[in-house]
Amino acid sequence: MKKLNYGMIGGGPGSFIGDAHRRAINLDGQAVLRAGCFSRTPEKCRQTGQELGISPDRCYTTYDEMAKAEAARGDGIDFAVVVTPNVSHYPICKAFLTAGIHVSCDKPLCLTVEQAEELCALADKKGLLFMVTYTYMGHVTAKHVRDVLASGELGAIRTVMAEYPQGWLAHADDWGGKQGQWRCDPAQSGGVNCLGDLGTHVENAVSMMTGLKIKRVLAKMDVVVPGRVLDDNDVVMVEYEGGATGVYWTSQFAIGHDNSLRVRIYCENGSLQWFQEEPEKVTIISRDGVSSELHRGYGAIKPGAAKYGRLPSGHPEGYLEAMANLYRSFIDCIRAKQDGTFAPDRIDYPTGYDGLQGVKFIHACLKSNREGNIWVTL
Amino acid sequence: MKKLNYGMIGGGPGSFIGDAHRRAINLDGQAVLRAGCFSRTPEKCRQTGQELGISPDRCYTTYDEMAKAEAARGDGIDFAVVVTPNVSHYPICKAFLTAGIHVSCDKPLCLTVEQAEELCALADKKGLLFMVTYTYMGHVTAKHVRDVLASGELGAIRTVMAEYPQGWLAHADDWGGKQGQWRCDPAQSGGVNCLGDLGTHVENAVSMMTGLKIKRVLAKMDVVVPGRVLDDNDVVMVEYEGGATGVYWTSQFAIGHDNSLRVRIYCENGSLQWFQEEPEKVTIISRDGVSSELHRGYGAIKPGAAKYGRLPSGHPEGYLEAMANLYRSFIDCIRAKQDGTFAPDRIDYPTGYDGLQGVKFIHACLKSNREGNIWVTL
Amino acid sequence: MKKLNYGMIGGGPGSFIGDAHRRAINLDGQAVLRAGCFSRTPEKCRQTGQELGISPDRCYTTYDEMAKAEAARGDGIDFAVVVTPNVSHYPICKAFLTAGIHVSCDKPLCLTVEQAEELCALADKKGLLFMVTYTYMGHVTAKHVRDVLASGELGAIRTVMAEYPQGWLAHADDWGGKQGQWRCDPAQSGGVNCLGDLGTHVENAVSMMTGLKIKRVLAKMDVVVPGRVLDDNDVVMVEYEGGATGVYWTSQFAIGHDNSLRVRIYCENGSLQWFQEEPEKVTIISRDGVSSELHRGYGAIKPGAAKYGRLPSGHPEGYLEAMANLYRSFIDCIRAKQDGTFAPDRIDYPTGYDGLQGVKFIHACLKSNREGNIWVTL
Amino acid sequence: MKKLNYGMIGGGPGSFIGDAHRRAINLDGQAVLRAGCFSRTPEKCRQTGQELGISPDRCYTTYDEMAKAEAARGDGIDFAVVVTPNVSHYPICKAFLTAGIHVSCDKPLCLTVEQAEELCALADKKGLLFMVTYTYMGHVTAKHVRDVLASGELGAIRTVMAEYPQGWLAHADDWGGKQGQWRCDPAQSGGVNCLGDLGTHVENAVSMMTGLKIKRVLAKMDVVVPGRVLDDNDVVMVEYEGGATGVYWTSQFAIGHDNSLRVRIYCENGSLQWFQEEPEKVTIISRDGVSSELHRGYGAIKPGAAKYGRLPSGHPEGYLEAMANLYRSFIDCIRAKQDGTFAPDRIDYPTGYDGLQGVKFIHACLKSNREGNIWVTL
Repeated sequence: MKKLNYGMIGGGPGSFIGDAHRRAINLDGQAVLRAGCFSRTPEKCRQTGQELGISPDRCYTTYDEMAKAEAARGDGIDFAVVVTPNVSHYPICKAFLTAGIHVSCDKPLCLTVEQAEELCALADKKGLLFMVTYTYMGHVTAKHVRDVLASGELGAIRTVMAEYPQGWLAHADDWGGKQGQWRCDPAQSGGVNCLGDLGTHVENAVSMMTGLKIKRVLAKMDVVVPGRVLDDNDVVMVEYEGGATGVYWTSQFAIGHDNSLRVRIYCENGSLQWFQEEPEKVTIISRDGVSSELHRGYGAIKPGAAKYGRLPSGHPEGYLEAMANLYRSFIDCIRAKQDGTFAPDRIDYPTGYDGLQGVKFIHACLKSNREGNIWVTL
Repeated sequence: MKKLNYGMIGGGPGSFIGDAHRRAINLDGQAVLRAGCFSRTPEKCRQTGQELGISPDRCYTTYDEMAKAEAARGDGIDFAVVVTPNVSHYPICKAFLTAGIHVSCDKPLCLTVEQAEELCALADKKGLLFMVTYTYMGHVTAKHVRDVLASGELGAIRTVMAEYPQGWLAHADDWGGKQGQWRCDPAQSGGVNCLGDLGTHVENAVSMMTGLKIKRVLAKMDVVVPGRVLDDNDVVMVEYEGGATGVYWTSQFAIGHDNSLRVRIYCENGSLQWFQEEPEKVTIISRDGVSSELHRGYGAIKPGAAKYGRLPSGHPEGYLEAMANLYRSFIDCIRAKQDGTFAPDRIDYPTGYDGLQGVKFIHACLKSNREGNIWVTL
Repeated sequence: MKKLNYGMIGGGPGSFIGDAHRRAINLDGQAVLRAGCFSRTPEKCRQTGQELGISPDRCYTTYDEMAKAEAARGDGIDFAVVVTPNVSHYPICKAFLTAGIHVSCDKPLCLTVEQAEELCALADKKGLLFMVTYTYMGHVTAKHVRDVLASGELGAIRTVMAEYPQGWLAHADDWGGKQGQWRCDPAQSGGVNCLGDLGTHVENAVSMMTGLKIKRVLAKMDVVVPGRVLDDNDVVMVEYEGGATGVYWTSQFAIGHDNSLRVRIYCENGSLQWFQEEPEKVTIISRDGVSSELHRGYGAIKPGAAKYGRLPSGHPEGYLEAMANLYRSFIDCIRAKQDGTFAPDRIDYPTGYDGLQGVKFIHACLKSNREGNIWVTL
Repeated sequence: MKKLNYGMIGGGPGSFIGDAHRRAINLDGQAVLRAGCFSRTPEKCRQTGQELGISPDRCYTTYDEMAKAEAARGDGIDFAVVVTPNVSHYPICKAFLTAGIHVSCDKPLCLTVEQAEELCALADKKGLLFMVTYTYMGHVTAKHVRDVLASGELGAIRTVMAEYPQGWLAHADDWGGKQGQWRCDPAQSGGVNCLGDLGTHVENAVSMMTGLKIKRVLAKMDVVVPGRVLDDNDVVMVEYEGGATGVYWTSQFAIGHDNSLRVRIYCENGSLQWFQEEPEKVTIISRDGVSSELHRGYGAIKPGAAKYGRLPSGHPEGYLEAMANLYRSFIDCIRAKQDGTFAPDRIDYPTGYDGLQGVKFIHACLKSNREGNIWVTL
């Protein structure tokens, strides 16, 4: 099968997330990096391009120039990967969608609900695919949770306890104090820190797994570590349409947690536990209390989830495989677009609309917190 | 050392908690059951008394009669153990305290703040010891958590995540439907179900471990399982004096949880995790993220906690040992009262004042929930 | 029901195991300590007796005197508990059995196969009950393993991996060097250290759980910690009658292990894992690899095991409950002997014959090791 | 940096391990697949080549032809990856080494000690790099174990307990009976099944982590599942030079285990536990029994191990990253060979000599088992 070509915006020297996207795409070898605007500094951009084997004439200094030039080439990129800081997601996505190029954008999608809605509408109008890389939902076990719940075998969902604590920013001077500094600047962050970074993952994970729609939220967003000006510990009470409830907790000073996205879902006839740091397994507890642990690769894993595995059970897959699974479906859909076989139910990755939900969630929480921890309807 | 004599109110045929108190006291063999009012039905009372080897003349039909008769005997009981349903704790405790007899009462202490305050004042006035059996805090590891936090080695407490989910009442017809029925009668339950049964354990555990005082609460108390009229899933946001925060979750339909009281405490320089169902260990995470597991019996356990161990590490102690530890201190204090060496700092068990805190906590949560999940100051 | 009377030999000041037996018997309150020979030093014996509330005329200086005097009394003890060092088990058990008194003896039973056989024959001849307190097999979950295997639902047993590592004697000077010293004296220890103390527990646990009979062993018994003269690390390959195999490992210098008796049993259609330090649960894995965790107190626990639980699931039971379960059956059988309703299938505790198996196992291993790690038939 | 070119022998349709090697190499994007002999069937070979984007003239029908043709080209492959069944490793490796091409070969290296020695000598004579892909030792945490032990901080190693049980072949008809069939043919398997597949991983893991050299072995190799003719459950007692000891267990019918390579190492002053299925963490227990869990990405991980991480802690890395780490060092060494900066201490991957050790280990075990489980010196 012909490999697709892609370009990257962001991902210059020292970028963790750009590097992760490139490796994840490499894993399946279905797309090749051909163009980039890796940094606003021309030298850094050229340097990264050279290291990655990009032709110098396809190393661009501005995303705008890149979008136009690539759209004009016969062998231009099939899709663009946007891995810049949050504040620039909106104009960059807009530029590539306008130029008729499919877009994969890192989360959170953008700063305002209006921006997110505009991007979704633009992609729809142009008939373009628009992915937002909530990576964790690429895991086979996360998809299994989704499919078990969808099957109805555990009955209705009653309550969801979800959390994403981290401990790496427990002190103002952790990570050279940088984390404290740029998070002080609302212009760069959109006035939110921990809830934007981690809370959107929780919101998306629960949404993808359960299909529940949030009706309203009551949020408490605290600034705890001395020297910080934006939230670093957040608790959100949630009510979903249909009556189920949830609690989401995120923190950046919870020493002992690395990346501890954990979702527990309690249903009428059983419950489910999923933990991002142990993504090879999922625990399902039946009504009699007996707890069963399934591993990726087992026969009991639902087929719609199992098909994303690359290795037999017992050979751990991790974060890059989860991201590669998003790209697997995204690339599959691009190919279907190109050969005219695309249909919407082919999409098995988070879209701009999921990104939009994340932005709505953040803004409802900000309002709830601002007004004294009251209920705010989404 | 001379054994003490005690009497029991409640604990007749089929009572789990009365049986547990008797076994826990037996464990150390420092007190002997000599009198009882095990049931309001005379026959059942006599039958239990006979099974337990109690002299028929000390099997009483009413607690009032028992309090007076035992107080009048030269060899009367040294303390009374109250293990009746919650609604009768207040008059029974009052009767024995009035009669000049030390009292150990099961939790929650009583239905109203006024009752609890009256009992505390009465015990104080009479110079009597008044224990409320929040059993879990008897564990060596729970006391170790308390002593580590008190030492200040982990710095100030920032946030507390505590929960006590159970799954045994996930359906209206679980346990013969009885649980759903009597919980429907506010006269018997004080208008609260799950939060009274489990939430007070959470409140007490956090209070004992951290020493934090609750300033205000915001509670959401839901009635979820069809057929139930009182709360069976509760979330409480907490603010403590001094600025730390917490979240308490309790549930009775969380399938997969037996008795899952779990407390996680995040401090400036480390964090702690304690889990009632694995009471032999405690996890302490240092600022660098390295997680250390300590077991009861290890040299690193603080001496004020370690002294309560009966067996070497690796020989599991459990629930009865935790309760026996409360009685160990309670009996030690009674003896000190009797020989005139008592001083308040000798007390290492939860007192009526802890029970009072629990009642205040419940009532503040009920008010918060009733008024739309607003903040209520304790 | 009338309480039984018992006496204790050993269990003086500082004895862990004597104290544990007394507490375990207290737990159910079905027998009362009335006589004792707690120490060979008369003063220590009287002191312990006084602390335990024993009448001075029933504090004996020699076990022989005690056996005769108690047998002669109308209200003499119903059974004797032998908790002295291993070397004296044989003469003491013999004295009490000869006097017509039921005996409970700590493990390992005695030093030679001949002694063990003699004691078993004596008990049989006299119609007396003779228990050897392999405590761990009293756990509800251990009995559940036994009953699952006996049901045949997992198919034939193929291999058993069992171990009991400890770390408390990793250095010659641990525990004041005492452990190194008395273990140097073959007269006191019977020429075996770690395998006698821990290996017999492994042997008994596997035997009780599986019902398998050992055909032959190949043992490697190493002396590793400098300053020690007897084995402190042992590996035994086992072949059972019928073709199944096993490996037993014991160690005293395995830092990180407290009392880590762990048994894993692999059958045709599933496997089982049981761990002494987490005795409230048992893991059963089905043929498809899905691992299920059951807790004591669940409906799925086999009735012959479940009946020994005292507390609902989630209220941890531990070591003392396991020992109390042995005494529950032992006392039940004594009562049946006394009222003429006894039948052998009433016995649900380890007997002298289990103790005899342990002695045979040790001697076969010693021979195998001595002759260069060859196969030795039991 | 210029990308290297590589070729693959084996890895045709349905090959798990060939696919894994290609993905692992892709992960870093430092080498590109340019040639292959993917199958002995020309059509299958061409088909795989086409799917992988290989030029048809570089899809070869025999490895011999491939070795010669690639050696003759100016742009020929820099290294060959051998992922055929074990029986053909020897002639293929020989062909490429003879042609002057660096070789990466899957484990176990080959069937006889003589073959393995010949290949090692050939690589040395030619100045070629020769890797054997014991994948698991690529994990950051495995390298950390190695570096902690090398540092001496835990004191001398006393004993090693290592195991690699699997459960996927618990029945003769598992996997369509195929596993039972080809394993019956000694010509294809070298007369060994489970010990060759899994035991060599155990042997290599312990060797890499500890640096210990095996002095002698005593092996018991059992054929258990009906219908199988070669070993499917093996226990090996090991004595190392210097006096430490070990036990290795492997099985293919141990239901409940996927790929459970687990190594526990007990030293004078602490112990270490490492588990392949949870490769992000390592447990180190200090002399006081306190168990500490470290995660990849933590500051406490030794620098020589930490440098192989690609993602921050909490973003799980897995099997492919471990394999990619072997290739990272291998490719680094090839580049150093090419630019003349190579030195042997640059090698941080398992070499032909490690493969040779594995073959020696197997043959010593086979002899021990054949002669009645006696000690055999390596």
